[in-house]
Amino acid sequence: MSESTVTMQGPVCPVPLHHHDQIVMGHGSGGRMTEELIREVFAPYFNNPALQEGNDFAQLSAPQNGSRLSVSTDSHIVFPLTFPGGDIGRLAVCGTVNDVAMAGADPVALTAGFILEEGLSIAVLSEVVKSMAASAAEAGVKIVAGDTKVVERGKADGLFINTSGFGWIPNHLQIGGQYAKPGDAVLISGSMGDHGIAVLAARGDLGFETQIQSDVAPLNHLIHNLTSAIPQVHVLRDPTRGGLATTLNEIARQSNVTITIDEGTVPIKPAVASACEMLGFDPLYVANEGKVIIILPEEYVDQALTILHDQKYGKEAVRIGSVTESARPRVLLKTRLGSNRLLDVLAGEMLPRIC
Amino acid sequence: MSESTVTMQGPVCPVPLHHHDQIVMGHGSGGRMTEELIREVFAPYFNNPALQEGNDFAQLSAPQNGSRLSVSTDSHIVFPLTFPGGDIGRLAVCGTVNDVAMAGADPVALTAGFILEEGLSIAVLSEVVKSMAASAAEAGVKIVAGDTKVVERGKADGLFINTSGFGWIPNHLQIGGQYAKPGDAVLISGSMGDHGIAVLAARGDLGFETQIQSDVAPLNHLIHNLTSAIPQVHVLRDPTRGGLATTLNEIARQSNVTITIDEGTVPIKPAVASACEMLGFDPLYVANEGKVIIILPEEYVDQALTILHDQKYGKEAVRIGSVTESARPRVLLKTRLGSNRLLDVLAGEMLPRIC
Repeated sequence: MSESTVTMQGPVCPVPLHHHDQIVMGHGSGGRMTEELIREVFAPYFNNPALQEGNDFAQLSAPQNGSRLSVSTDSHIVFPLTFPGGDIGRLAVCGTVNDVAMAGADPVALTAGFILEEGLSIAVLSEVVKSMAASAAEAGVKIVAGDTKVVERGKADGLFINTSGFGWIPNHLQIGGQYAKPGDAVLISGSMGDHGIAVLAARGDLGFETQIQSDVAPLNHLIHNLTSAIPQVHVLRDPTRGGLATTLNEIARQSNVTITIDEGTVPIKPAVASACEMLGFDPLYVANEGKVIIILPEEYVDQALTILHDQKYGKEAVRIGSVTESARPRVLLKTRLGSNRLLDVLAGEMLPRIC
Repeated sequence: MSESTVTMQGPVCPVPLHHHDQIVMGHGSGGRMTEELIREVFAPYFNNPALQEGNDFAQLSAPQNGSRLSVSTDSHIVFPLTFPGGDIGRLAVCGTVNDVAMAGADPVALTAGFILEEGLSIAVLSEVVKSMAASAAEAGVKIVAGDTKVVERGKADGLFINTSGFGWIPNHLQIGGQYAKPGDAVLISGSMGDHGIAVLAARGDLGFETQIQSDVAPLNHLIHNLTSAIPQVHVLRDPTRGGLATTLNEIARQSNVTITIDEGTVPIKPAVASACEMLGFDPLYVANEGKVIIILPEEYVDQALTILHDQKYGKEAVRIGSVTESARPRVLLKTRLGSNRLLDVLAGEMLPRIC
């Protein structure tokens, strides 16, 4: 076979990535520069057989026992990209790991879709990828499929990350927002409002110094240990956007029950409480990224709290309320003064771009 | 129980969605306005039990026979949002359906993550959602989990959509870019370059009128019918970003083979060929969104072409080349003049934001 080796390339000359310290449009081409970006920035951290195969899909084994699949997706647009206690990478991993786990599932894998703005610092991107890898390792999940797109300067805000995830739900669990029952107790795994206020502080919007750290964390191990011991858990839900109040309203509506929360029992850090007071926010509407609402039959409360207190992310778990019958779904807050206040869902936007 | 019903709401008054004809930041709150957006814009089109449950996860049954799971993800940033033959919604569904199907899997479900720019027309969003629903119906997949985020005006470009998808791979198939073998034939399901040139035309960048339509289409039924009859298929890959040349290079590298393509056999529409000639593009590097490269043992070529010609999206399928042994992976183009030219991967960016 005769070969005249005229090398055919796209109209842009190949430039090794190490000559770039910023993202350029060519990194989104699907060609050599995309390969370099993947090889030099993503591969060192996201490294597993499914990704190494280099296909457009990942292949994964399903358990043979007919387990159900739990699937979730979340796009992450937090601003700024880094905040006390976390960054967009840790958020992107934990947000989806937690949503998958809220079915009682053991998350096994994530996909990651990156939208990069032209001009994004590659050093910043590398730090985010490293943080994703560390959070995925902590959660015990693999990032099995990825995608990278680049948009022109001014058409995005640095970096957006979508993660989708899935995991297998053990056959004996039936957990969901629709399963809260009269007689159930409501627990929360820790303090409310830390994440939203930490992001606000990182923007310099508080107008004062604070030590508040985001609570962003993977909750799947905590949930695994809880549901392994107490498969009778009815509801698990993380109070993210819209906070505790909005999330409880969703559950009340799904299960058509009244949920009553005792204001004095809801853990709120003093620094979060002061920041909220100064800004006119109600901490019950501020987002959390490492907390879970647990609803389960009354008789398992003590056992659940004992288990939770033994977990890294459950040390401050407390009971905060009860589920009762209701003609219509609603959430009531029993105030420190003893009156019952109706807690509605968040109406509009309070803290944009916190996740 | 005494109830003083002070209604607690976020700081923004609730405004029904029908009073908005544009996206506002509150639509990303996770509260009432997000609910309204979901109820009024998404729910009419994306309607299935998994979504209706209202949890942060979808639950799906796995087959009992130990099938493997095929998983893929893609973020879609195409500009403009609508182009001849398709729109970002159809692209977002078909792109991921096709990637999942390239494992020989039957795609069953998608997740959809929307990043909306403040000010996006809700009419435009509704059209996109409607188009996604129509494409999902055509492909026979369900959109089982979703997420909506809003960023400030100028921090995105109207609308970005991430879709992730999965499906089950029949036990007897083993398909992937690593399985091309010397002696295999290379087929393509239709003409090259239609999508990239259609998007460019929609931008008005061609400088002349053209009738070129994007080929964006779901290929899963075609693939199902092909692999059901010929489970011996080795490779399936859709030549999207980077086009046919880049995609063949990926396969050559994964399988460590030489792939030789006969230039005269590669179908290119005359209008695409003229547009490419005028613009200085090589159509072998232009993206496709409804075509598939099929690599399979020589003896199945006739049977495969007969099956493909019977499929809606395979009528123009042809054989374009062969796989041979190689000391190093490479793709050769046998030109009309009879010489062999080395076809490399796309070096930089040729047509940004085409998917």
